[in-house]
Amino acid sequence: MEIQWIKNGGVTSAQGYCAAGVAAGLKKKGKKDMALLVSAKPAAVGATFTANQVKAAPVKLSAQHAKRGRARAVILNSGNANACTGLRGIHDAKLTASETAKALGCRTPDVLVCSTGRIGAPLPMTRIKGGIKKLVGKLAADGGHAAATAIMTTDTYVKECAVELALGGRRVTIGGMAKGAGMIHPNMATMLCVITTDAAVEAASLRRVTADVVETTFNRISVDGDTSTNDTVFVLANGAVGGPVLSRAHPEFEQFRAALHLVLSKLSRLIIEDGEGITKVVDLTISGAANDADARRAAEAIARSPLVKSSWCGNDPNWGRLMDTIGYSAAKVREELVDIYYNGLLAVKGGLASKTPFARLKKEVSKPAFAINIDLHLGRGCYALWVNDLTEEYVTLNKGE
Amino acid sequence: MEIQWIKNGGVTSAQGYCAAGVAAGLKKKGKKDMALLVSAKPAAVGATFTANQVKAAPVKLSAQHAKRGRARAVILNSGNANACTGLRGIHDAKLTASETAKALGCRTPDVLVCSTGRIGAPLPMTRIKGGIKKLVGKLAADGGHAAATAIMTTDTYVKECAVELALGGRRVTIGGMAKGAGMIHPNMATMLCVITTDAAVEAASLRRVTADVVETTFNRISVDGDTSTNDTVFVLANGAVGGPVLSRAHPEFEQFRAALHLVLSKLSRLIIEDGEGITKVVDLTISGAANDADARRAAEAIARSPLVKSSWCGNDPNWGRLMDTIGYSAAKVREELVDIYYNGLLAVKGGLASKTPFARLKKEVSKPAFAINIDLHLGRGCYALWVNDLTEEYVTLNKGE
Repeated sequence: MEIQWIKNGGVTSAQGYCAAGVAAGLKKKGKKDMALLVSAKPAAVGATFTANQVKAAPVKLSAQHAKRGRARAVILNSGNANACTGLRGIHDAKLTASETAKALGCRTPDVLVCSTGRIGAPLPMTRIKGGIKKLVGKLAADGGHAAATAIMTTDTYVKECAVELALGGRRVTIGGMAKGAGMIHPNMATMLCVITTDAAVEAASLRRVTADVVETTFNRISVDGDTSTNDTVFVLANGAVGGPVLSRAHPEFEQFRAALHLVLSKLSRLIIEDGEGITKVVDLTISGAANDADARRAAEAIARSPLVKSSWCGNDPNWGRLMDTIGYSAAKVREELVDIYYNGLLAVKGGLASKTPFARLKKEVSKPAFAINIDLHLGRGCYALWVNDLTEEYVTLNKGE
Repeated sequence: MEIQWIKNGGVTSAQGYCAAGVAAGLKKKGKKDMALLVSAKPAAVGATFTANQVKAAPVKLSAQHAKRGRARAVILNSGNANACTGLRGIHDAKLTASETAKALGCRTPDVLVCSTGRIGAPLPMTRIKGGIKKLVGKLAADGGHAAATAIMTTDTYVKECAVELALGGRRVTIGGMAKGAGMIHPNMATMLCVITTDAAVEAASLRRVTADVVETTFNRISVDGDTSTNDTVFVLANGAVGGPVLSRAHPEFEQFRAALHLVLSKLSRLIIEDGEGITKVVDLTISGAANDADARRAAEAIARSPLVKSSWCGNDPNWGRLMDTIGYSAAKVREELVDIYYNGLLAVKGGLASKTPFARLKKEVSKPAFAINIDLHLGRGCYALWVNDLTEEYVTLNKGE
């Protein structure tokens, strides 16, 4: 059996998980704003968190809890980030975990906590506690979609998917949910993501493969160049299907890694396609850089350039702005060596306009998704990033309080 | 005599300069698009150019010419950047200089060249040559305003000013013109700027003081984080008022430096107040950083953050986004030490919300200009930058071809 997509799959597609999503009054208009995911038995856990020096309270707490390598539940809220909230924030995150643990009959360190929303306001704990009670009462083996709905912020659609594959002669599932939309730049995307699998995976191997796969998926998307305080990815593996415990030494571990990569890659794509106010997704590749770090510097400069990104919004193949941006990036660039392609069409050859007609290039840039390849012809360094255009709508969405 | 502003002053306020601005057909609708400034006698010249690795042809040529330390004329065009145009671009820039030199009866290396506009298209040399002829015929001692008008791109008003002061018992004038609007970030602002003075200044001292003063004026403004291929500042000193030649050893040189700083600072402010689509100018200061480099990193991260800049556009004192941004910047930050002030009002104390009411902070952020001070309490590093908000209008202006 190859890796196959599960139709309408999500965070409860794997065996031995249940979830729920409810409205606890954190968001306006009775929208769902709290989610709970529970594993029937203790699960190994891999986790990655924001690289921001300013970390939200739930990130600090969950990093401690996840370090133990196992978990039973993840409790999440939208509508409030519980960031820049000091000792009170830490206390509130702990209380969220302990109240959840109490309701589930497990230990507090077995509960992981995620928050997303505006920074700087304390969590309304009465509502959080009420939400936990509601969630526990609604837990269901098909509750994944409700949970995925409850973690949305400016997302315009729910982000979830799942795959199945054969491992050790058993049918194994990997599924997950994510939220994205804004404040998204490596490392990491502003996002919460919870992945579940019913495979059995050794904790240290799971931690390592999670970090590796995040590096080439969630760390390769940029909506706006802003890295949030709350970014979190959890991968839970509860072994509900039985079979041998996978570790990196296992011959089938690469198959597991490939499937995990597929799920995270799909969720990354769903996030970038739903970037705030966007009209374009650009598959940007820098090759021929002096080294990989330089390739990344050039790619990230483009991902941050409002001039380049505004031109995409206007369907303008303005390669001059690309030349300008890589030129001021910290990457080594020799103007006369640079080639630029739009969807494989040569736009710039050796730093100069190619003979490809402007109208042909414009046609490519007018598509909702297109690729830009920039070859610096200096070495073998390479880096790829999915980025968005910058639109008036992005500003409108982020002006408000 | 103190340093005093000259009413309606500009690039021809100093003695011994004449200028002109004409429409040569580079821009649409018969708008002025070429300017010429001429000094009656050879002038010492100080110059700074873009730090971008991709430099426009006129930048490469003018850097060579300016190295000689003296010049007679500056020829400028808007409507075409002559950047990413290879050997043809260099040839066209040289031809622009030599045609100007021929018409003025001076040597080609005495002519400096500036261009601004879209990147990647060759200069229309027939129109340029026609423009030069027209310009020479219109040169006038009061032609500064016409010249300043001709270098505008998306600028909404002409940027010029002049001061006078006493040096060595003589009345000396320093004046200038600039264009700005977009692609503006240290180093340097996307801008062209020509300064003239009738003081006599030794060439090496003029070169040094130009670089110093640009560092604390044009290199301290950021509209959009993009550094252009064409940025150029020229300071010409023709000594038309006579008197001793100023050098750094001269007791009155600091007075000259102060006046030059005042002129460049004023032109910087005119540029930032006319940033593309902006509604706000923010006087951003980072203090208490581990060192000056860290303070600069934090300030520039804020200057590049679309989330922070969108919130200003919406009159939102969203300090959480400031905390987030300094947190992901490369500057060392300890969340619990950070204080943030809006116009002197404490918004964040030790990384937490202060007791200042939200409405009071909102009132400050609603003003067209306000100050943000962030004290990291880690050391003595400091950096100041003038920045703009990000608006829907910025995107609209930069979407088009």
